[in-house]
This record gives sequence, structure tokens and C-alpha cells, in this order.
Amino acid sequence: MAQQARAIQTRRSILVAAAAVFDERGYSSATISEILARAGVTKGALYFHFNSKEELALGVMDLQLDTVPLPPQLTKLQELVDQGMLLAHQLRNEPLVRASVGLAMDQAVEGLDRGTPFRAWIDRLEHLLSAAKNQGELLPHVQPGETAELLAGAFSGVQVMSQVLCNREDLGRRISVLLHYILPSISTPAVLATLDMAEDRGERLYASLESVPGQAAATG
Amino acid sequence: MAQQARAIQTRRSILVAAAAVFDERGYSSATISEILARAGVTKGALYFHFNSKEELALGVMDLQLDTVPLPPQLTKLQELVDQGMLLAHQLRNEPLVRASVGLAMDQAVEGLDRGTPFRAWIDRLEHLLSAAKNQGELLPHVQPGETAELLAGAFSGVQVMSQVLCNREDLGRRISVLLHYILPSISTPAVLATLDMAEDRGERLYASLESVPGQAAATG
Repeated sequence: MAQQARAIQTRRSILVAAAAVFDERGYSSATISEILARAGVTKGALYFHFNSKEELALGVMDLQLDTVPLPPQLTKLQELVDQGMLLAHQLRNEPLVRASVGLAMDQAVEGLDRGTPFRAWIDRLEHLLSAAKNQGELLPHVQPGETAELLAGAFSGVQVMSQVLCNREDLGRRISVLLHYILPSISTPAVLATLDMAEDRGERLYASLESVPGQAAATG
Repeated sequence: MAQQARAIQTRRSILVAAAAVFDERGYSSATISEILARAGVTKGALYFHFNSKEELALGVMDLQLDTVPLPPQLTKLQELVDQGMLLAHQLRNEPLVRASVGLAMDQAVEGLDRGTPFRAWIDRLEHLLSAAKNQGELLPHVQPGETAELLAGAFSGVQVMSQVLCNREDLGRRISVLLHYILPSISTPAVLATLDMAEDRGERLYASLESVPGQAAATG
């Protein structure tokens, strides 16, 4: 393996290990030595890529933003629903995604800009909502920016509550409920009637992505 | 002052100090000695009431649930809106409320049941929604339990996002937006048209409570 490819793989395996430790212990209790042991790399290798626990946390938060490209759908609002349902599925199944979202929600992560992942999600949702607006899918009063912020905020709280109450076992159902309550305030009735917001939508999407070579889930 | 009244006052001042320290530092970084210094009580007094940092956190979470009684309104859905708008206002102005919600959202709070405050809020909202249903204010398909859970979860995420992005400066507006998107999926059109969900609703309510003797805000 070329040296650069090996470095990229090492960096990634360190971040995966850091994500697992952050996910299990929370940011403040996680230690670099625990991450080292989990990653199975030398101290030198870790410090070559990351100078501190803060940098590891930033790396984990960044990595979550490189998400899987979703298959295009007939409506942009279905793609918006798919983003939410897929993220719900990934939160249940991928420690990297769980850790990244956990860090953004963790008040103990001082000195890091926890706004970055929120803003990245808001941008992505706003982009989809603007495209939906251009295609005439939205009710006339809907402002893409405001709606994107609402969806990002509401999603993040519903997933914390599901984590606290039942370790995210019911997250697919809860995000489906959220979308069922909010989409009627966004979508034209004709588009609304076509949307698949079933609680197993994320699982089905994920399975279809994994079966297409080159589109397999990049994270986890 | 009678001995019992003094003990209650001491207990409360310790919890107010603990809340301020949890709010500023997060749970994991907060220390008992910092809480002692802030409360201005002796170590003996603190340990008479609380054995550990965990017990202080539980006390803070419990105290938030003793909320201000809200004035009755013409519709139960207005009372539901008022609960949300008042809590948004209190989160901006009362360290005790802020700390309590922060503890429920903090993954580092291990070994404590963070589900308690969520369940208490869900119960309160479900109670209001059931009363609204009995008065014919809800659309026929609405299930009070499911809706109460959605509102509690979405609210908690919107407030974290507002905290992360702008230290909760825009929280009144964001909760108003949340209600504007969700209430049309819950309320009959006739009741919906009567609801005051303006972003300054919480502030106005709070001011009216403070001006009525005996109904002044109990927390803070």
C-alpha cells in the first residue's frame, strides 16, 4: 500500500476508535490512552494526526458530514424525508454517526464550535427545501431557511429523548412521527400524498445503498 | 425563623448554587467545593442535605418540575402553547431551569435517570392534550400520548440548537416557529385561529405572573 493510502487508513481507524470511546463514555470521560488502545496504533501515529482530544472530536464531527449520497427521488421532499430517515437508521447502527451527533449535543465539549454540524445539516436541508420550492412542492408561505432550522433542531431533540428513554430503539418510529406532523405544514397536498415516511424507510434505503457497489455506506 | 423553615431555605439555596455551577461548567466539570463556595454554606450543611454530586443533580432536576401554575385560558391548546412559550422564556432567564434541562440532555450524567424530567414533561403535555381532546379542540386522528412525546422531544432539540448557535437569544422565536408548524397538525381550524403563539408570548405571561401576589415565579 502506498504511504499516503496507509496514512489515510490509519487516520480513519483512529477516528473510528475515538468515536466509539466518545459514544460509550461521553466526551469528558474519554481519554487518549483509551482511544489508543481501541485503535491499536502507537502514540506516535496518533499524535502525527491529532494533537489533542479536541482535535479528535473535531475530526469525528467532520467525518459525519461526509454522508452517503442518497438515490434521487421523484420529489425533493422525498429526498428530505430520506435524509432524516437514513440518519435515524445510522444513529442506531453506526457508532461514528452516534458519536458525532453526541458531541454536537454535549455541553461539556468546551472550546469547540459545536455549531459546525448543526450549520452543515441546516445548509443541506435548506438546499433540498429550496429545490423543492423551485419545483412547486412547497406551500407558498414556507421559508426554506426557517424550515431547515426547525427540522434540524427538532430532529436532534427527538433523538436525544429516544436515547434517554429507550437507547434509540424507537427512533425510526419517532422520526416518522415528527415528519408526519411537520410535512403537512410544508408540502402541497399532492406531493404529501406521495411521500413514504414509514418508520422502516431508513432501513430499506440503507439496505439498497449497501447492495450497490461504490455507493456503500462510507461511514461506520 | 423556625428550624424547619431555615433547613428548607438552606436546601433551596444549595440547589440554586448547584444549578448555577452545573449551568456554567456542565455536570462533569462541576465540583462540590465550587458549589459550596457559591452557596456560602458549610460543608456540613451541604452534606446534611445531599450526599453527592449525583444527589444535587437529582435535586436540581426535581425542582424544575415544580413549575409556575399558569393562568387558565379559553382553550386547553392555548395552555399547551403557554407551557412551551413560558419554558422558553425561563430557559433564557432562570439558571435553575437551564441547569435542569441541561442535565436531562447531558450524556455525561451517568447513573442518574435522565428520563425523569422527560417523562414528567410528557405527562404534563399529555394531560393538557387529553383535556383538549375532550373539549373537541383536536383533529380526530391525534393521539395525546404520541403528540406529547413529539412536542417534548422537538422542544428539547430546538433549545439546544438555539443555545449552541446563539446562546438562546432567539429561543422565543424558534419555539414560536415550532408551534406554528406543529399546531396545524393537531388543532381544529377554529381553535387554531384563536391561538396566540407570538414569540413574546412567554415574556408577557411571565410578567403577568410576577405582578400577581402569590403567583410569582417560584423558581430562579
